[in-house]
Order: sequence, then structure tokens, then C-alpha cells
Amino acid sequence: MERTIIKDALKRTDFGEKINVKGWVRTRRGNKNVSFIALNDGSTIHNIQVVVDFNNFSEEELKTITTGAAISVSGVLAESVGQGQNVEIQATEIEIYGTADPEKYPLQKKGHTLEYLREIAHLRPRTNTFGAVFRIRHNMAMAIHTFFHERGFFYFHTPIITGSDCEGAGQMFQVTTQNLCNLKTDENGAIDFSHDFFGAPTALTVSGQLEGELGAMALGAIYTFGPTFRAENSNTPRHLAEFWMIEPEVAFIEIAENMQLAQDFVQFCVNWALENCKDDIDFLAKMYDNELIERLKFVVENDFVRLTYTEGIEILKNAIAKGKKFEFPVDWGADLQSEHERYLVEEHFKKPVILTDYPKEIKSFYMKQNDDGKTVRAMDVLFPKIGEIIGGSQREEDLEKLTRRAKEMNIPEKDIWWYLDTRRFGTAPHAGFGLGFERLMLFVTGMQNIRDVIPFPRTPKNAEF
Amino acid sequence: MERTIIKDALKRTDFGEKINVKGWVRTRRGNKNVSFIALNDGSTIHNIQVVVDFNNFSEEELKTITTGAAISVSGVLAESVGQGQNVEIQATEIEIYGTADPEKYPLQKKGHTLEYLREIAHLRPRTNTFGAVFRIRHNMAMAIHTFFHERGFFYFHTPIITGSDCEGAGQMFQVTTQNLCNLKTDENGAIDFSHDFFGAPTALTVSGQLEGELGAMALGAIYTFGPTFRAENSNTPRHLAEFWMIEPEVAFIEIAENMQLAQDFVQFCVNWALENCKDDIDFLAKMYDNELIERLKFVVENDFVRLTYTEGIEILKNAIAKGKKFEFPVDWGADLQSEHERYLVEEHFKKPVILTDYPKEIKSFYMKQNDDGKTVRAMDVLFPKIGEIIGGSQREEDLEKLTRRAKEMNIPEKDIWWYLDTRRFGTAPHAGFGLGFERLMLFVTGMQNIRDVIPFPRTPKNAEF
Repeated sequence: MERTIIKDALKRTDFGEKINVKGWVRTRRGNKNVSFIALNDGSTIHNIQVVVDFNNFSEEELKTITTGAAISVSGVLAESVGQGQNVEIQATEIEIYGTADPEKYPLQKKGHTLEYLREIAHLRPRTNTFGAVFRIRHNMAMAIHTFFHERGFFYFHTPIITGSDCEGAGQMFQVTTQNLCNLKTDENGAIDFSHDFFGAPTALTVSGQLEGELGAMALGAIYTFGPTFRAENSNTPRHLAEFWMIEPEVAFIEIAENMQLAQDFVQFCVNWALENCKDDIDFLAKMYDNELIERLKFVVENDFVRLTYTEGIEILKNAIAKGKKFEFPVDWGADLQSEHERYLVEEHFKKPVILTDYPKEIKSFYMKQNDDGKTVRAMDVLFPKIGEIIGGSQREEDLEKLTRRAKEMNIPEKDIWWYLDTRRFGTAPHAGFGLGFERLMLFVTGMQNIRDVIPFPRTPKNAEF
Repeated sequence: MERTIIKDALKRTDFGEKINVKGWVRTRRGNKNVSFIALNDGSTIHNIQVVVDFNNFSEEELKTITTGAAISVSGVLAESVGQGQNVEIQATEIEIYGTADPEKYPLQKKGHTLEYLREIAHLRPRTNTFGAVFRIRHNMAMAIHTFFHERGFFYFHTPIITGSDCEGAGQMFQVTTQNLCNLKTDENGAIDFSHDFFGAPTALTVSGQLEGELGAMALGAIYTFGPTFRAENSNTPRHLAEFWMIEPEVAFIEIAENMQLAQDFVQFCVNWALENCKDDIDFLAKMYDNELIERLKFVVENDFVRLTYTEGIEILKNAIAKGKKFEFPVDWGADLQSEHERYLVEEHFKKPVILTDYPKEIKSFYMKQNDDGKTVRAMDVLFPKIGEIIGGSQREEDLEKLTRRAKEMNIPEKDIWWYLDTRRFGTAPHAGFGLGFERLMLFVTGMQNIRDVIPFPRTPKNAEF
């Protein structure tokens, strides 16, 4: 008999028909006459109830059907009288594919801490929580591709292994094929990379933006969606050494259109979650964060307030004057801390906020310089609970200004000649932004630790699985 | 005035209306009275013609509008009398964003070799050929996500940095944060990784399959789509050090369903290209490969023939007996060469072919062992012109058989304990396959060199941009 996915089986109403489902046992309970198996196949957070009548099966047969076992159940679809479910299956035949020794299987029905589940990341997708998180993760990726595809953007694969660190975004992982036990050095004692795979020092990318600009200045509008890497030794709930980034880049737009694009984009994604991941989000809200759904709707339903960094600083200073306490000082020229960002969003405006025109000293060399000589056309999108979710800017399209700023920031021209070529030949206004995928995932799932929204987190001292 | 994307402008019929387009000049030609600018913005392979009447513009103004310049054109939409185009713009206003010095701009209108364009990979997306290739690349990615999403698969991010090389698929790139000039060694002279970022030797993934199986054995059906790496020193038109792979994995299916999934999948993608990339494919067919469209239709319209490796060997031996010459010998137990695969597809069956049940010695440890003790449930999908496009298998779900085979192939159990856990707890039949994205791209575009279907190819001695 053809298998029915449990998500579909739960919607069927043709009671009395034969049905086959396959999945993993979540629980088995019952009495002397009948056993109830809660079966899950990963297609949905909901289990289907399998009713096993002991007149048809021996207890011996059923003994190995414990939590974690994989089975195939054929039977009759029936209307359920139990609470919280519409259908059940009255089993006529059960095939056991694989058992799960209750003495050894690490996922018994009792609740586990998220910390413990991280240690068994190879099994945790079998739990309700991580099933929900990874189904939402898939949906967020699908939302992202759909959003850009519908707007005529092209998905553009920027390189993972790179010879340059122009973003200056942090420490990088080196990539090499050399025998570390027998490294060749040149006459000055420096490593001789001529025998390395690429014939030069290489590292893992920290951002695809610069190459993304090359794509945008040819194809008009592109986006990247790929892994990026930071070798910062930060053991916090918000840092990963390996994470996924989305970086759209658009020719012929300026910062106002870039802000609208960012708002439309993130609202589209969050709305997709509300519309397509209801069961999983309801579960996460119930288990971890009862304000989750309210916060998601808050972002979808409110226009984002737009103001300059300078205006933001003033609001914060006024708040301090009126008695508001912050841990970190507020001074024009310094980067805002998460507490400042959240104050603007959650307390002052009660709306998502886009701050623009930051001091040039705290932003990257490629951002468009304003006429005031002090600020650049950067933009940060600030969200409730998590602070900055998107960072972007209009890019400096003027070759001379860009070259000068790169020099001031000690970026060697020989490393970015190819990037400068976009300004040398057919330059035009353009803008873009970056979204850390796991930061979006934290927002949408309400999870607190970034290790819990990616299947196999890479952090200091941890590259298992 | 709001900008119209050129792809949309070319479809408009509201002649007489005002319009604004922005883009890069492909060519400018004309006479003493009028100038014709072919403008492209990357949204389509087609240019829009801009007609510049010298009564409205001075020649001085127009002098800098040369190939490669970025401009904004406002004017009146008009029906075109020229051949091969329906609309043109009679310019009333032109803004020049960026010029492109004809003495220096590397992409003048004359044709360039693909080899030369590889050296300026940062600019080649501005050419017709690479514009077409990268628009198709986007569409193939979209087709892949759409196919799996509609079938209830979940996109699953497997790790890029990994501590294990269990696939044994080839040489790996090491990843390290250690100072190569000052490497610490232990008392035995071996590298001391305890101070490295991950506290252990790590490398870039060669395949996400093993981790993908973990996902499938929890979520039911997953697919990966991410970068993979091989440090083989192969300077050929078919090898990249960094390429993108798609690896679906499905619980509760066996090899027959896996074959059907592979056929449905690749037919869906190729059909998507025919339906959504017609202009770009027409261009590539005309320029590079006039059998391209026929070959794409061949794959979409024909069921794939299914036979065993052993049957395939017999057909090849019969062909040899009848006088067919191959460069490489045909012997049971050896891997098929591309010439053998293409003979089966192009000459014998004249249909795409799926070969199954290969000798276990030439396949991976995780493939399901057949009862004959000699073969495993592998499957390769063979295509015209390129040979193998997909490789996959039903996986060995029996813990004991899998452990024994891993041992025979010298894979330490301590490296795959987590993988073996899927067989230890709730094991079930499952199967999957891998598709090299660039191999699909070669097939769909008709390009000959894999360096020409990825924006920034990484090959020995080359990690530029």
C-alpha cells in the first residue's frame, strides 16, 4: 500500500479506508487490552495516534515498539474520539524497521535541556523543538528565494574560498593543502605558498558583498545566500564560527529604496512564517516564548520608522536626561549597543526602526560618503528583542572617493583592483544589505541561543558531526 | 520618473507614454543626425534601443556614451521600425552615471574568447554569454528549491567545516587558525591542535550526505544545497576545487523510488529551463551548441531506461564484439568511463539511462549490500554528452553490515559513531543521491568548461576575486 505522509493523513476524512503510515514512535501507552502509539514522521509537529488492539497483536510483538523505534503501520483510518486529534489508525499490520533500546536511546520521552540536546546534535532533529525549528528554517529559506525571484533578482554564488579580506569584518579561517608538519619557507623565513593549492594564502569568506556588487553591476539585482565564517573566539549565545548570510545588492537604487527593500523583505519572511509555519510557531510560543506571535505580528503590521543615527543619539540622550539608565554610555561617534537599539524600538517608537547615516569611522570603507564629511549612508534595521537584524548601505560609486577612503583605512589597492573596476567602468549608484540567516531564525522561532537554530553549530572547540 | 526594468519595457505597448530606463551601453552607432544606443540592464539578454536625435542633444554630450557606460534615459516609448525589436525609446533626457574609457575598458564590443573572459571574471557577467549563464544558474537554483518544497522536503544545512572525512571522496582542504609560522607540536612532533580554533584538525566538507541522513531520519525528507570542496590537483574542464552540490535524502524509500525521484527531479529542472529561460537558452544554442535545445527536450520527453551495471557491461561487451572501439577496456568490476556511459545513452538506448547495482569495491561503504555479496544498491544517472549527472544509492540500514563494511574499508568507528547511531536507534530503509550543480549547469547551458558556469571558479593556483 502506498505510504501517506502523516501531515496529509491528519487531514484525511475518508474514514474506513485503508491507510499506511511510516515513522518513529514518540510514545506508547495503554492498558491490558489496547496500546496507543504516537507516531511522527517529521512532516509535521503533530503525531498520528495508532490504536493497537491486543486481539490482533501479541504483547510479545509489541514489546520492541518503544520510543524511537521506526515502524510501518497499515490499518484503517478512523475518526478519533480522543482530545486534540481528528483521526487515528486502527492497526491491522505493523512492520518494525528498527528498534531503539530504551536503556541506550538518548531521547526518552522526558524533557531534555537544550544544552544536553546540543551534545547530541545528530539526534536532536527528532525532538519536537528541533523538528519545529528546522521546518521553519526550511520555510525561511524558501521565503527568501521566493521574495527575490518574484522581484527579478538573480541568486549569485560568491566564492567561499577567497584570497582577500577586504571587508575587514573579523578574523578569518585559513585554508591550506600544505603539510603542516613540513611547511616550506622562503629565504626570509616567511611561508612559501607557491606549493599550496592556490599558490597563495587563502581563507574562508567573511562576506560575499564585494563580489555581489560585481554581479549587481552586470545583472542589475542579485542576492547571495551562502555560508560565511568568522574565527572570533566568542563563546556567546549570539556567535557562530559558521553561519549563513543573505546579501542582496541592487544597481540604480539609493538608500531610500534600499530601506524599503529591507522592510519589504523581512516583512515578507516573517509573514511567510506566520502563514506557513503556524503549528510549529504555536508550539515554540507555548514552550519557550509566549510573546513570540505578538512580536512577529508587530513587525509585519508596522511600518519601520526611519531616522538618522544623529537623531537616534539625541533621543537616547533625552531619555538619559529624564532618568533612563543604560549600562553603556551614549556618545555621538560610538556604535550603539543592543540596549540602546532596543530602547528605540521597544520603548520610544514601539515600531521597528531603521537608523541611517552613521559616523564614517565606525563603518566600512565602501559606504557612500555624505557631504557633511562625517557620516556615511549606512542603514541598520533594528528589531524588538534582538536589536540589529540587518545592516546595509548605499555604496560609494565615485572611484576617487572610494580609493581615498580605502587608503585611509589601510586597504591595499592591489587587493581590490577588481572591485575598483566597477567604479572605473560604468559606475552607477547602487545599494544593498546583509541579513544573518540565524539572526532571522532567532527572531522567528523565539529561541535564545544561536546554536539552537542551525543543525550543526560550529563554535570554539566544537566541530563535531 | 520611476524606472522600468528593460525586460518589462520590451513588453510594453503603450506607445507615446513617457518611460525611464537605466543600464549599461552595449553599443552606440549612428550617423550625423541620429545615434542608436543599445542599452542593457542585466534583466534580459535583449537590449532596448535608445534613439538620440542630435536636434535635442549635442555631440559633445554624447561623446562619453561609449560601450560600458552606465546611463539613465528618459524619453517616449515608441513602436520600433527596426528589425528584431518591437519597441524603442526616443530619448528626451540622458544622465550619465559612469563612463568607460574605450582605451581601457576590457569589454569592447568585439567578441572575446572564453579563456580571456575567465581572466576578467569580475567583469564577464556584463557579456551576453555570462549574463545568460548566470540568469539560467539562478533559475536552476529556483527550480531545485521549488521541486523539493512542493514535495514536502526540508532544506537542511549540513556543515561546511567538518572534523571528519568519512566519504573518502578525495583530498580535503585543511582549515586552521594557527599561526603557520609558529606551529605548536606535541612531544611526538605531531601538530598540537589543542590551541587551534576547534581544538582538533578540521577540513572543508566533501559532501553533506552523512549529515543529510541524520536529517532525513528525523524530518523524513531533506535536501542539501551548498558548497563542497575537493583539493584534487586536476586542471581539467570538468573539475572545480569549490562547487555546489544538491543532495536529497529520504526515509522509508528504496532504490526504485529513489530512481523515480532522480528522474522527476532532473526533468523538472530541465523543463523549468525550457519554460523560463528561453531567450537565454536560444542565445547559447545559437552561439555555442546548436543541438542544445534538442538535447534538453530529449531528457524531458524520455523515460529513463533502468538496468543493472552487469547488464550494462554485457551490452558494452556485445558492442565490442560487433566492432565498436573504446579507448578504455570494459571489464566487470571496473568503473565505467564516460565513453561507455555515452554509448549506452546516445547509441544503444537513445534515452537517458539509470545504471544500478554496481560492484561494491568501486562504491562507498554506506551503500546497501545486495544478497549476492558482490554488488551494492548504487545508482548512476547517465545523460547524453556529459555521462554521469547523478550518483546515489539506497543506504545500508543494518547496523552490523554497515559497521563491518566500514571496518573493511578502514573507516575508524570513532569517526562515525554519530552516523552509526541512526542505525542503532530507529533505523529504517532510506535512500538519496547527489547532483553536482555545475554539472547540471553544463548540461543545461551547453557550455564546455565548468569554469564558465560558476561566477568565480576556484582551480589550482587560482583563487582570485
